[in-house]
Amino acid sequence: MLLLCLIAASFLVSADPPTCPADLGGKCSDSDDWQGDFFPEIPKIKYEGPSSKNPLAYRWYNAEEEILGKKMKDWFRFSVAFWHTFRGTGGDPFGAATKYWPWEDGTNSVSMAKRRMRANFEFLKKLGVDWWCFHDRDIAPDGTTLEESNKNLDEVIELAKELQKGSKIRPLWGTAQLFLHPRYMHGGATSSEVGVYAYAAAQVKKAMEVTHYLGGENYVFWGGREGYQTLLNTDMGRELDHLARFFEAAVAYKKKIGFKGTLLIEPKPQEPTKHQYDWDAATAANFLRKYGLIDEFKLNIECNHATLSGHTCHHELETARLNGLLGNIDANTGDAQTGWDTDQFLTDVGEATMVMMSVIKNGGIAPGGFNFDAKLRRESTDVEDLFIAHISGMDTMARGLRNAVKILEEGSLNELVRKRYSTWDSELGKQIEEGKADFEYLEKKAKEFGEPKVSSAKQELAEMIFQSAM
Amino acid sequence: MLLLCLIAASFLVSADPPTCPADLGGKCSDSDDWQGDFFPEIPKIKYEGPSSKNPLAYRWYNAEEEILGKKMKDWFRFSVAFWHTFRGTGGDPFGAATKYWPWEDGTNSVSMAKRRMRANFEFLKKLGVDWWCFHDRDIAPDGTTLEESNKNLDEVIELAKELQKGSKIRPLWGTAQLFLHPRYMHGGATSSEVGVYAYAAAQVKKAMEVTHYLGGENYVFWGGREGYQTLLNTDMGRELDHLARFFEAAVAYKKKIGFKGTLLIEPKPQEPTKHQYDWDAATAANFLRKYGLIDEFKLNIECNHATLSGHTCHHELETARLNGLLGNIDANTGDAQTGWDTDQFLTDVGEATMVMMSVIKNGGIAPGGFNFDAKLRRESTDVEDLFIAHISGMDTMARGLRNAVKILEEGSLNELVRKRYSTWDSELGKQIEEGKADFEYLEKKAKEFGEPKVSSAKQELAEMIFQSAM
Amino acid sequence: MLLLCLIAASFLVSADPPTCPADLGGKCSDSDDWQGDFFPEIPKIKYEGPSSKNPLAYRWYNAEEEILGKKMKDWFRFSVAFWHTFRGTGGDPFGAATKYWPWEDGTNSVSMAKRRMRANFEFLKKLGVDWWCFHDRDIAPDGTTLEESNKNLDEVIELAKELQKGSKIRPLWGTAQLFLHPRYMHGGATSSEVGVYAYAAAQVKKAMEVTHYLGGENYVFWGGREGYQTLLNTDMGRELDHLARFFEAAVAYKKKIGFKGTLLIEPKPQEPTKHQYDWDAATAANFLRKYGLIDEFKLNIECNHATLSGHTCHHELETARLNGLLGNIDANTGDAQTGWDTDQFLTDVGEATMVMMSVIKNGGIAPGGFNFDAKLRRESTDVEDLFIAHISGMDTMARGLRNAVKILEEGSLNELVRKRYSTWDSELGKQIEEGKADFEYLEKKAKEFGEPKVSSAKQELAEMIFQSAM
Amino acid sequence: MLLLCLIAASFLVSADPPTCPADLGGKCSDSDDWQGDFFPEIPKIKYEGPSSKNPLAYRWYNAEEEILGKKMKDWFRFSVAFWHTFRGTGGDPFGAATKYWPWEDGTNSVSMAKRRMRANFEFLKKLGVDWWCFHDRDIAPDGTTLEESNKNLDEVIELAKELQKGSKIRPLWGTAQLFLHPRYMHGGATSSEVGVYAYAAAQVKKAMEVTHYLGGENYVFWGGREGYQTLLNTDMGRELDHLARFFEAAVAYKKKIGFKGTLLIEPKPQEPTKHQYDWDAATAANFLRKYGLIDEFKLNIECNHATLSGHTCHHELETARLNGLLGNIDANTGDAQTGWDTDQFLTDVGEATMVMMSVIKNGGIAPGGFNFDAKLRRESTDVEDLFIAHISGMDTMARGLRNAVKILEEGSLNELVRKRYSTWDSELGKQIEEGKADFEYLEKKAKEFGEPKVSSAKQELAEMIFQSAM
Repeated sequence: MLLLCLIAASFLVSADPPTCPADLGGKCSDSDDWQGDFFPEIPKIKYEGPSSKNPLAYRWYNAEEEILGKKMKDWFRFSVAFWHTFRGTGGDPFGAATKYWPWEDGTNSVSMAKRRMRANFEFLKKLGVDWWCFHDRDIAPDGTTLEESNKNLDEVIELAKELQKGSKIRPLWGTAQLFLHPRYMHGGATSSEVGVYAYAAAQVKKAMEVTHYLGGENYVFWGGREGYQTLLNTDMGRELDHLARFFEAAVAYKKKIGFKGTLLIEPKPQEPTKHQYDWDAATAANFLRKYGLIDEFKLNIECNHATLSGHTCHHELETARLNGLLGNIDANTGDAQTGWDTDQFLTDVGEATMVMMSVIKNGGIAPGGFNFDAKLRRESTDVEDLFIAHISGMDTMARGLRNAVKILEEGSLNELVRKRYSTWDSELGKQIEEGKADFEYLEKKAKEFGEPKVSSAKQELAEMIFQSAM
Repeated sequence: MLLLCLIAASFLVSADPPTCPADLGGKCSDSDDWQGDFFPEIPKIKYEGPSSKNPLAYRWYNAEEEILGKKMKDWFRFSVAFWHTFRGTGGDPFGAATKYWPWEDGTNSVSMAKRRMRANFEFLKKLGVDWWCFHDRDIAPDGTTLEESNKNLDEVIELAKELQKGSKIRPLWGTAQLFLHPRYMHGGATSSEVGVYAYAAAQVKKAMEVTHYLGGENYVFWGGREGYQTLLNTDMGRELDHLARFFEAAVAYKKKIGFKGTLLIEPKPQEPTKHQYDWDAATAANFLRKYGLIDEFKLNIECNHATLSGHTCHHELETARLNGLLGNIDANTGDAQTGWDTDQFLTDVGEATMVMMSVIKNGGIAPGGFNFDAKLRRESTDVEDLFIAHISGMDTMARGLRNAVKILEEGSLNELVRKRYSTWDSELGKQIEEGKADFEYLEKKAKEFGEPKVSSAKQELAEMIFQSAM
Repeated sequence: MLLLCLIAASFLVSADPPTCPADLGGKCSDSDDWQGDFFPEIPKIKYEGPSSKNPLAYRWYNAEEEILGKKMKDWFRFSVAFWHTFRGTGGDPFGAATKYWPWEDGTNSVSMAKRRMRANFEFLKKLGVDWWCFHDRDIAPDGTTLEESNKNLDEVIELAKELQKGSKIRPLWGTAQLFLHPRYMHGGATSSEVGVYAYAAAQVKKAMEVTHYLGGENYVFWGGREGYQTLLNTDMGRELDHLARFFEAAVAYKKKIGFKGTLLIEPKPQEPTKHQYDWDAATAANFLRKYGLIDEFKLNIECNHATLSGHTCHHELETARLNGLLGNIDANTGDAQTGWDTDQFLTDVGEATMVMMSVIKNGGIAPGGFNFDAKLRRESTDVEDLFIAHISGMDTMARGLRNAVKILEEGSLNELVRKRYSTWDSELGKQIEEGKADFEYLEKKAKEFGEPKVSSAKQELAEMIFQSAM
Repeated sequence: MLLLCLIAASFLVSADPPTCPADLGGKCSDSDDWQGDFFPEIPKIKYEGPSSKNPLAYRWYNAEEEILGKKMKDWFRFSVAFWHTFRGTGGDPFGAATKYWPWEDGTNSVSMAKRRMRANFEFLKKLGVDWWCFHDRDIAPDGTTLEESNKNLDEVIELAKELQKGSKIRPLWGTAQLFLHPRYMHGGATSSEVGVYAYAAAQVKKAMEVTHYLGGENYVFWGGREGYQTLLNTDMGRELDHLARFFEAAVAYKKKIGFKGTLLIEPKPQEPTKHQYDWDAATAANFLRKYGLIDEFKLNIECNHATLSGHTCHHELETARLNGLLGNIDANTGDAQTGWDTDQFLTDVGEATMVMMSVIKNGGIAPGGFNFDAKLRRESTDVEDLFIAHISGMDTMARGLRNAVKILEEGSLNELVRKRYSTWDSELGKQIEEGKADFEYLEKKAKEFGEPKVSSAKQELAEMIFQSAM
């Protein structure tokens, strides 16, 4: 029983037009007249410490506090996702939009896009966050032609450039939206239509240019439509080749324009497609290796995507790290009992601790950061909910960092692991690790040794140590 | 990375207005001017037999053919789902609408609703199907007030009544859409807002009236929002009590207006909510029993919902049947590797055979039927795809019926089962089944018997017999 | 690639006989010669508070401390599961036994069973736990006849009775093992062989008697084989009827012998069967209602079973509670990414907090308790691991209780929920809840009200409050 | 509630010793006295065609029939898995052995191993199958030392060599069992104990030698324990390096002894470990590429492992094929609703058809084949069930081949795919595929083209064509 969104949207537009600039008395005009004070009742969010009862304060995230020689803000480089926070409507496959923010006027005009961009900067400043992420089409409206779309985008980008001035605010990354428009229904780079491939290339070219122009530090590829619905009608081999050609062209263009940011692939197993080519970190790595692209890309690991692919988030981070590919984190969480991307703000401190254990091992993730690819629940409709959700997510990550450091400094977990592998710190271990032990030598050793002694893995002790640090 | 539908919809409406009445030369007016020939290139679909290569013909579904003393059309009572077939836009959580049928003019007007209803009747006739299913809000637009919504609905219903004349076409069932509008975001009968409960009651009252008026034979409750997103903010006990009160009032009203149709609950485990109260057949049955409603309702089993809840479709059908609750079937299938409702047309002949084995055991399912709660894939955008999908689904079910009968008549599967339980057809078996064997008597028997002989379950033989009948 | 256990077991028995009584110098005899000091290096486990670094001490579980007017030990009534702790070998579907406890002599003799029972009592005392749970066949060896099995059981039970003296130690519950022996391969009460039904009845009769004799407070039914592998060879309706007859006879026998303990059904969706009849709490409740047994049974909710059936543990507890069926908790956890019962000790404090929120709402769960249906990982092979695991599990539950009380006393979460439903505390709300509001009245009200106001669900705030209490 | 296997096994051995050589009157001796006629009541299985009702005949598999220029037997190269067919006991995590074949004497002696090998050859001949697969430890008992184990193995191998004479029977592949023995509990090549690595190497060395000696055509690595239970105690990077060293040594040894067979890795996502390093085809490919081993290995794709990792079997086969890695198929199927490896014989004709579509595209899979890594259900305990299961599995695959050829020859599905990508057969398509189209050129083209036309994907038509061929 699925009624679709267009219906929903259209009836709502007519039946219940979103009141626009509520506190401008409904004077809704297509002008750039509302330039600030979008969140009049929300103070600048400050650190008040764990005992605070104020939902509009940080309890664990203290931006300037130094941890392991680095400020908290530099460990995280938190970023607000423009799409969820400013374009999320609360619609779902069975439901229409639920959110009518006061600054929205119900249109998708360039003026509205600019007003929204101002709201974004005000939001970032109140939150004390220096980074944001965007798709081309969520910050500026599509036009009827590519040229018009680019023009719309340029106008909004100019405003963003201006708003950046005097602040440290920059895009953590930009990306092109190659999944929403029906032209991309069969994919962008992997579309069965060659014209769509060309269109996608043009769109990525532009998105990369504007990301570069704004001083963005990374550029992301999420292939939401790069996959298939059924193998019966799909030439998977040809599609994968096309995807590789597309990435090669992106690398070449990046170098040509002098963009130094990292190119990131964001794995996801499925949804909206039945199978997405960048299934998980290992699949993406295999693709990059197969096509000789391994040195040109890193990965953007999203926790909810990790669990959808059957892995823990920790596993995906470690897989990326061990392949030299850990570039950025989309900090969110899914629902352990549902099979789709719920993109919730993470509030599980244990999970956050494991994430931060990986990040510390990686020596941080700059020039990447933590993007909140997370959204309010459909039923959360107050403006303050936007702040509460981000604060809660940031505080959870901050607790994760503090706990991870505590575990590291306390030392007994690392000691447990070190001991577990101690037999490898032997002459034979060294020979094997250096590739000097062939099967005949190993057989000889095995016969010498007799039945090997095998120690307890001490998993329960490891879990006790971990739990105690929470 | 989820952009929401409203955005999509609005930009599309402006950027790319759906061409309306393509063959009327784009003369798009708000009048009831287009009264027929919506599918000029599609012939009336006929039975041509298994060797036909014509995709617009039935190969296995032969409506008038008698099987086990009943015509095929009476075994199935196939029904077209108005929402998927006429309101499905191809939108998904990451993508905008993809379908622009020639009869659509891009509006949600009453005139458009009426033109669409005419298309529905033409579709049913070309397909040779006598039944259809609807939600109030997918056949007529929402108004700004309940009164206006009801008026819109009445106008479309009048047209449907007129179009029915001289045909056998009737609604298999109607239902109220209590999930799309934002007022229902916390539920209808289980909303945290008492006003929403009242609104939902008013809407169901009207939907039941119009279903009755059109000669509908069933009325369905699908509680897409009757559930929770998190227990942290939910009073589940109170919500379940409210749901029971709501159903009691529905039963009372049904009787008051003399509606003889069956009330059906459609179980689904989740999506859109994290947990839906009518999780599966057994959960719904428990609810009905707890609140004394077991004799007033039956179940509408949907195959895709069955698999989402961890069961086979066959299991849910048998559970419903054994509880005396098998009322209707939403014939579709899901994707075995994805965790959401894909609502695909079933083309797996084995699955269809198992479904029909249950239906035969139940002696058919009238006054229920087989509703195609199934939709085209987002990427299928030709008008003929609507026909191909239904033909394929109907043919698959028809093969299922033919195979089930073949298995039944061949007899060896039933014989295998009979033999398996043959020790129960003994004196002791009879005593136990009649409740006359207490633990002391059974212990005595067990001691007499010694170690019991246990026969092979012959599962592989059962599977071989089943596979051979395909 | 699955090699089966018998092979494993036999080759191990011959190839690598478990050293028996290690500190008796390998003098392995079939006598009851080892009566104590099984854990010479483990001290009595004491509460040392959160700052302790001692893995063999409680940090949060303080048995005698009063919380909300009840001692911690009375909130929990922790129980050790004999099967996991004393019969768990570390075998899995692909691997042989890994655990060779010093008190095991490699036999399955009655003497060995008695020595193991002494170890159990020593373990309970060192841990400071008063309850334990058992299956008939894990505490005493099967004989070649029912009579011999019963005799073996009696001998071990006599020892347990003696060991209980002067202590508060009692069985939390007993149960019959109706799944391991091949005679039960098609089920016990639902076997296709009537002789097996009788045998199962005799076994339950005896297990209930000995549970009663030892002062056990509950009796559990876990229907591991009561289900099916395929519907193709199964008469589900007849099997369910047999199950009901079996339960009726159990109720009658319980009353006859004056056993006052609670009869508990333990739901599990599947494994070892493809489908188990007691799928989840709602399914079990439906069965009990259908057969008129609802007042005679309660449920034993296991967290790992909850997640296998697609629910949170919290959901299953609340479902049981709202049906008046919350009787006991099998405290464990599963792995969120695997599809089988991992039976791990719970170390997630958030999860434990939600469990305890349900238990507090239920006013405690006595005469039920918290049974640790949890086992060491296969790779954990030190005797001390048995203690560490239980301490960690008990401490986690204790933190859960402390947090749940903190949330309750702080009050803002309850206040959030109260506010959310406040419109129901109106005249109309009352009328509806009392069943006095019919559809016509509700429609009238809906028209009077106009479009209802719908408030934010504040889920992120609820999660923030919850997270802050951790 | 899990009782472990050792217990089960031991009590059964004492309580109910399997009757051995039933038709030798129970004269069970440790000699090689039973040399033939293990299946006296089973005839040689012949092809009788689709209308046959004989469960002990082939209906679709006709070994000598030519299809697309190749005999059916050469398309499939069917292989019997020794472990399931001759060592499967029916034990599961909750249940003891259920199968007592007449030739088993309850021991694990070398004599018994030899008798079992004779039964294997008789089984192969009656079935008309030329290939079999084995682990070292399932064909010959473990000894107390490596030397003794090797000696046992040699003795059984000599018999197999002799039994091969005059027949075409050969091992499709051999492998070493590195998962059952407790020494491998932390892994073989990835064990935390260096001594276990050496032992594993010695075992693989020997298994490779005997596979070579018998004329085996492949050698398989299934890393059932090569993974982790928790990252908390695991050094994943170091373990993966060790695994690579191990494979390098295997390649070197293979070359040294002149073994020309293919080395195969068999991916599986999990079970018994929580995470297995060879998760799926793409993960294994990434590993092979990272460590420079991509040209030395192929993959053995198992259908049940495919679905456990969230893919269709078809997807895994295509992924392997496109990476040049499709080496062998473990033909089985899982249960779509359970989360563990059920290793069932495949009887779904649609699934089989998709598998064969991949195999045809690959030009066959020799020197690999189709190994039946499938077992009887625990409850199937008749000797004839072993035959029925294999016949049913072979017939299903044969139907799959016939259907795949039918689809290929009928041509409309291929035509649908060709058309779908036809825009790529243009000048621009060629330029892109040759890497000659940079972003600037593509942008220019996109502007020239304007909005691209996007055709229907025709998925429902593809499914209709597919279904009709069944």
